[in-house]
Amino acid sequence: MKAVGISGDAGRGLPRASAVVISVGTELVRGEILDTNAAYLSRELAEIGIETVGHVTVGDDSEALAEAVLRAASACEVVIVTGGIGPTPDDITRDAVARAAGVELQRDGAALAHIEGMFASRDRRMSPSNAVQADFPRGASIIANPRGTAAGFRVKVARAEAIVLPGVPVEMKMMWDATVRDYLAAMGAGAAITRTVNCFGSGESDISEAIGDLMQPGQNPLVGDTAEEGIIKIRIRATARTRTQALELIDRTKSQVKARLGDTVFGEDSQTLESVVVGALLERGLSVTVAESCTGGLLAKRITDISGSSGCFTQGIVAYHNDAKVTLLGVAPEILAEHGAVSDQVARAMAEGARVGAGSDFALSTTGIAGPTGGTSLKPVGLVYIALASADGTVSKRLQLRGKRAEVRDRASKHALNLLRLHIMR
Amino acid sequence: MKAVGISGDAGRGLPRASAVVISVGTELVRGEILDTNAAYLSRELAEIGIETVGHVTVGDDSEALAEAVLRAASACEVVIVTGGIGPTPDDITRDAVARAAGVELQRDGAALAHIEGMFASRDRRMSPSNAVQADFPRGASIIANPRGTAAGFRVKVARAEAIVLPGVPVEMKMMWDATVRDYLAAMGAGAAITRTVNCFGSGESDISEAIGDLMQPGQNPLVGDTAEEGIIKIRIRATARTRTQALELIDRTKSQVKARLGDTVFGEDSQTLESVVVGALLERGLSVTVAESCTGGLLAKRITDISGSSGCFTQGIVAYHNDAKVTLLGVAPEILAEHGAVSDQVARAMAEGARVGAGSDFALSTTGIAGPTGGTSLKPVGLVYIALASADGTVSKRLQLRGKRAEVRDRASKHALNLLRLHIMR
Repeated sequence: MKAVGISGDAGRGLPRASAVVISVGTELVRGEILDTNAAYLSRELAEIGIETVGHVTVGDDSEALAEAVLRAASACEVVIVTGGIGPTPDDITRDAVARAAGVELQRDGAALAHIEGMFASRDRRMSPSNAVQADFPRGASIIANPRGTAAGFRVKVARAEAIVLPGVPVEMKMMWDATVRDYLAAMGAGAAITRTVNCFGSGESDISEAIGDLMQPGQNPLVGDTAEEGIIKIRIRATARTRTQALELIDRTKSQVKARLGDTVFGEDSQTLESVVVGALLERGLSVTVAESCTGGLLAKRITDISGSSGCFTQGIVAYHNDAKVTLLGVAPEILAEHGAVSDQVARAMAEGARVGAGSDFALSTTGIAGPTGGTSLKPVGLVYIALASADGTVSKRLQLRGKRAEVRDRASKHALNLLRLHIMR
Repeated sequence: MKAVGISGDAGRGLPRASAVVISVGTELVRGEILDTNAAYLSRELAEIGIETVGHVTVGDDSEALAEAVLRAASACEVVIVTGGIGPTPDDITRDAVARAAGVELQRDGAALAHIEGMFASRDRRMSPSNAVQADFPRGASIIANPRGTAAGFRVKVARAEAIVLPGVPVEMKMMWDATVRDYLAAMGAGAAITRTVNCFGSGESDISEAIGDLMQPGQNPLVGDTAEEGIIKIRIRATARTRTQALELIDRTKSQVKARLGDTVFGEDSQTLESVVVGALLERGLSVTVAESCTGGLLAKRITDISGSSGCFTQGIVAYHNDAKVTLLGVAPEILAEHGAVSDQVARAMAEGARVGAGSDFALSTTGIAGPTGGTSLKPVGLVYIALASADGTVSKRLQLRGKRAEVRDRASKHALNLLRLHIMR
């Protein structure tokens, strides 16, 4: 018997219920699949005032899981287990949790009828093995699964509530939303809420200079930052007795953060550069087109990722080769010959040609060397020119980006969107 | 003191060293950041014959971490800890691992000089707090960090090797590659290797019908499948005394899988539809262009994701509005009026127009309703037509895709690439 353990840091701040999230699956332990359920559930638990003190992942091993559940249950008020409730012999969670609870498994007639119904509605016959999905620990309350045959359940293990949900994220989330959140919310003391302010165009050091005093540890709200794919997210986390109080605390700090960081801030929470830019264009009744070389469609893709973008975007040109820049965008061959495709002059000519062609208010262009090949000492990998053409004339920017091909393309497309954002927001 | 625990399933197959991977960070436990290190390290450990039996995540709590390390060390031969070795007071891993090992922390002169040197090379003065990064448990061997100031170390805890690495993935991976893998490989018994065969265009049930007998549990190689964003990956995992033997086992099963699944198989391991299509075009000296409506640049983006794609892709058109389909692709206004933009006829006309415009061997087109709005009862969200124009004529396909906007666009672009792949591979 092998065993490992963890301890909690739940002692800070308000007295609160604590939780451990356990993920079950040999594929998870082997790293063949990335576990996203534990992080999702931890965020959701925090919002109802329950602090997660640890995540544990175990393989399809009933004894190991039973031990993990028991240990967690002897220490926390809530134990959430995801995965291992399918119909195959590898699905050991029902058995393990029953063992941890010290009770037998018992077949539930209504659950069995539900499973048979699901098969019937799909014109398939239920195989005998599926019947095990109607087995639950004696005394458990069943948590219905509207999307699949794997029902969840909750049962007392020692002094804790053990909640068992499927590993399939979409089913787990649906059941969390429909039943589990409200049930557990009654156990939470206070609320811990995190909101983010999203920035682009400044480095982490500039940001910590501007708001470093707000980022000192031990404060409420607690302010921290993370950098992801060129976007810096300022996380503001508040704890309070109620959700409303926590949101008030957040709002106050958010205003300070935004005032100090100025136009580096482009949005909040799930907002992206493209959602903000498309929103601003639609609001103003303005339109944009794109002329892409090194980003090769990514800039148009980002814009059209946003539902409703057809209201501000009618067409885009991917002009990967020089010939295409001439024929599709009207870039003069002499400019290409004199300055090369990766040049300020060509970026400007691409944007201007695209704007005329599309008859749009704005046009964005990109031309650069995404790598890994194609760089020279004068024009190294990561050199990108972007331009914005509008009725006010054309502005451009030279970028020297770091990273691999995908990063260079990603950052170039973000800088282009940001150039337009700053222009619109002026 | 709160604690949870897990047990291993290392008993199967060859007798092998086992490991627990511990990730440290309150942001991880709260779900604010997704842990990818544990999965990465588990895969790497498997390749050198060490079986991971559990993952544990703890917050920035020295006592909790010390307990987790001790518990893991009393049960496994290898304990890998990532994170918590920065310069701030929240970085508790050095302290916790020293406690678990039952030794004091000791400052290392050479490590201190390295950190001072890193600051000097960046023209910055080292702050006194950074000196703690030169503290290691007495008796530890230091693992150099060429990219940052956070050096790792290894030290005996009970009967186990405890290996401490930074939480920053790029630094952790670099140190794993440079030092840790070879050191631990000596402890592994045998090798467990996983390879994948990648499929597109069949459902999971078709695949399990074709190779279900190979997917029975308990076999070596073990065959399983996962579906990710429309791609079904057949995982083949073999264990053997040596890496070479494991690879031989995999090759035999891989041949069977490929023979049975036929042209549903498009590649292996990290190969994508776009990498396979671009590779096939370059090999044959052929070229492609795109005319995109509902995918809005995503198809061009996918093709130009591949380095070297400029050898087969010169230009692409994003024709989002009907006007653009007429002016940029030469689609006859009557066809649009008669059949609507989302129709087989328009998809064909778009591809044919794009092919003539670009002078390419092939042209792919997409037109559809990505949603969430814009659907009707006759043309619901998810209805997409794709077409492929070539010297042999034009072929097209009607798709009824499920899922949200991003999924519809993703699948549409993949079906278009697959249409070209099947045509080239004939």
